[in-house]
Amino acid sequence: MRIFSKHHLLGIEELSQKEIEFILHTAEAMKEISFRDIKKVPTLRGKTIITFFYEPSTRTRTSFEIAAKRLSADTINISASTSSLVKGESLLDTAKNLQAMQPDVLIIRHPQAGAPHFLAKHIDAAVINAGDGMHEHPTQALLDAMSIIEKKGKIKGLNIAIIGDIAHSRVARSDILLFTKLGAKVTVSGPLTLIPPYIEATGANYCFPIESALENADVVIALRVQQERLKQTYFPDIREYAIRFGLNKKRLSLTKKDAIVMHPGPVNWGVELDPEIMDMPQTIILDQVTNGVAVRMAILYLVTGEKH
Amino acid sequence: MRIFSKHHLLGIEELSQKEIEFILHTAEAMKEISFRDIKKVPTLRGKTIITFFYEPSTRTRTSFEIAAKRLSADTINISASTSSLVKGESLLDTAKNLQAMQPDVLIIRHPQAGAPHFLAKHIDAAVINAGDGMHEHPTQALLDAMSIIEKKGKIKGLNIAIIGDIAHSRVARSDILLFTKLGAKVTVSGPLTLIPPYIEATGANYCFPIESALENADVVIALRVQQERLKQTYFPDIREYAIRFGLNKKRLSLTKKDAIVMHPGPVNWGVELDPEIMDMPQTIILDQVTNGVAVRMAILYLVTGEKH
Amino acid sequence: MRIFSKHHLLGIEELSQKEIEFILHTAEAMKEISFRDIKKVPTLRGKTIITFFYEPSTRTRTSFEIAAKRLSADTINISASTSSLVKGESLLDTAKNLQAMQPDVLIIRHPQAGAPHFLAKHIDAAVINAGDGMHEHPTQALLDAMSIIEKKGKIKGLNIAIIGDIAHSRVARSDILLFTKLGAKVTVSGPLTLIPPYIEATGANYCFPIESALENADVVIALRVQQERLKQTYFPDIREYAIRFGLNKKRLSLTKKDAIVMHPGPVNWGVELDPEIMDMPQTIILDQVTNGVAVRMAILYLVTGEKH
Repeated sequence: MRIFSKHHLLGIEELSQKEIEFILHTAEAMKEISFRDIKKVPTLRGKTIITFFYEPSTRTRTSFEIAAKRLSADTINISASTSSLVKGESLLDTAKNLQAMQPDVLIIRHPQAGAPHFLAKHIDAAVINAGDGMHEHPTQALLDAMSIIEKKGKIKGLNIAIIGDIAHSRVARSDILLFTKLGAKVTVSGPLTLIPPYIEATGANYCFPIESALENADVVIALRVQQERLKQTYFPDIREYAIRFGLNKKRLSLTKKDAIVMHPGPVNWGVELDPEIMDMPQTIILDQVTNGVAVRMAILYLVTGEKH
Repeated sequence: MRIFSKHHLLGIEELSQKEIEFILHTAEAMKEISFRDIKKVPTLRGKTIITFFYEPSTRTRTSFEIAAKRLSADTINISASTSSLVKGESLLDTAKNLQAMQPDVLIIRHPQAGAPHFLAKHIDAAVINAGDGMHEHPTQALLDAMSIIEKKGKIKGLNIAIIGDIAHSRVARSDILLFTKLGAKVTVSGPLTLIPPYIEATGANYCFPIESALENADVVIALRVQQERLKQTYFPDIREYAIRFGLNKKRLSLTKKDAIVMHPGPVNWGVELDPEIMDMPQTIILDQVTNGVAVRMAILYLVTGEKH
Repeated sequence: MRIFSKHHLLGIEELSQKEIEFILHTAEAMKEISFRDIKKVPTLRGKTIITFFYEPSTRTRTSFEIAAKRLSADTINISASTSSLVKGESLLDTAKNLQAMQPDVLIIRHPQAGAPHFLAKHIDAAVINAGDGMHEHPTQALLDAMSIIEKKGKIKGLNIAIIGDIAHSRVARSDILLFTKLGAKVTVSGPLTLIPPYIEATGANYCFPIESALENADVVIALRVQQERLKQTYFPDIREYAIRFGLNKKRLSLTKKDAIVMHPGPVNWGVELDPEIMDMPQTIILDQVTNGVAVRMAILYLVTGEKH
């Protein structure tokens, strides 16, 4: 019996606890492939995977592309910036045209929330959400979970603090959904203007100042600061941000002794994170990147299984 | 005996009726591969295929790239916009340099008519014309023919109407050449300023108004309207175009009852075609896209055969 | 016993005469693969190769990509211009993130001299320098050497003239290093303002006018002229350059009778080289391009061998 019953990966919201756990188990098995001498298995040979990015993202695109190649799939990259496909054409028209070339998977990043869900209704290919507006970024949350479990053995019962611009972050949204589904206690902190109004409805608590969120934390996730967002919300500047919300050794001394520090990247060193914590063993930002490939291999494998 | 005797695909003009039919038969066989679970055959393993596009075209480039990968060829994409190769370098120099890396096929799109023919004289690789200026777009005409034959069983004896900017359309040019070679009767209609002066020399007839071209048609092909072209020829605007030349249900009632509607894409819905015909079964625009991959697989396979 | 003991290819400077010769022998064997019907061997199957170019270079990137594919490696292209990876991120951060995805080889082109050396200290993947600022371009020097040996049977004892902007040319620098290591006598000529002050320290001699450098030469390498560089150094213009330093039949009559003419490309025909010598048999510019693929296959093969 297949526990993963989805043909698409649209968001963490659509996944049950069991499905999340099944993806994470599969990702563990996939991770091993990347450490072999021949880092390739024939699992997805003959499958066509299109990465279709309306927002630039070398990091996520490269991670998906490497994942696809390790499974022997064929990959086609389309970026909207260089693409004539999208000029004056609706997303649906574009997608139907891509569908007509019979890809097996369409990995989409789009500035509008819900774009992947919309596509999934209209095309046969499996749709993977690689980030939709301020909505979800499910593979990031899955790789975050995988990285936590690697270090802590579990998610259930952990205190997880997420620091920064919660309101505009699809990473924060997917993380909160996933961690609470798996039984963690999530606390967020950051400038009040960057916290969504009904944060408790997501299952997370808001704490201020940052110190109270860090207290007793097992995991601290810092989010990337976007200068434009600070300005829009009348926050003084990144210097002030670093002083009030930046993570450094002193602040991290409030967490549990073996707490881990994470970040979805790319880090603004000296803003969200002080360079002094860059090489601490509990800073596992690069493990997250490594696990990103494994999680994406798992997702590509699972969504291309038989349709249910 | 091999019926297809060409090493290049430069235009429909260079092909005999027998060669066109041979390509279409091969494409039918290729189409089946795209529906398999493992959509890949080892036919072109070890062949190097370069797509070299001086004009942006995600649609056509993606179709060729998928076709090449389904045949297990290696593909390299070069686009002139992001390419340093072409700065201050002649097309011939660039091509000779690419040739020196020993590709098997060079797929070129170029704004100048005749660019592929010029290259074919100077390099060993098979050259495929993916659109040259206002001259030819042979793979589009072949996929159009394949799509018609799928629905109508033949081309010979059909009434085919092509509507729009005939003068600037390489698709129209290649279509007229192909359909008349295979024995169809082609009628064109569109704004008079967008009809080439000696249209009868191409083998097609010009009719005005559009209604007389649609009468009794088996196939209607609408071309994409370029706003700049309308302006240049003092045509009022796209609204006026839609009123006078746009295809809708009412106008299509003039055609034969089972007439099919085609478009090379991307469609300006509401201009060349009314959205009400988008989901009619006789609108086969997406079948054209699917057949595009099959036709390009056939062409890649045929031009890489032994040289004659 | 493996003679090539390096895990990276950073520059010609780091290579012994024996290592250079070993690379060139390997490249000869690799060249043969490109002439087979199936131009592909499974040697690097499952290896992940990232091309990471901070400066545009379709020519070099394509050569590396073809080389990698002929060895069955998986390739991922990242260009800094279209890359979000590098915004506000240090080279080291970017590299560590790429490393975390476990590539086997990182091919880097960067405007700063020493960038590849810096990366090699911090990442596990083999680093290949595809051009770093005005410092080195080792694969170009290796393909130059391979091309000379093909025609002359050796490098040792040859008179090699390099003409042009020596001061800003990484090609000249790597060439001089390689040719002198293998026992050639290298003479440079060009506008005095474009000759580095201590040229003799590199092992090359400076001659003026160009005629004295050509006298008795076995090999003449013309470098590409950058108009901006001429201006910066108060050189009149490219017309004047062509008159005083351009190679034509008359000037080449001063060399040995069977002297070969080379250029790293792309050539400004009519500036560094007169079009009249384009098709002379001793002009081997396109052989250089062909050998470029072979040399890069050799390098990819050698740097992915066991670490020492």
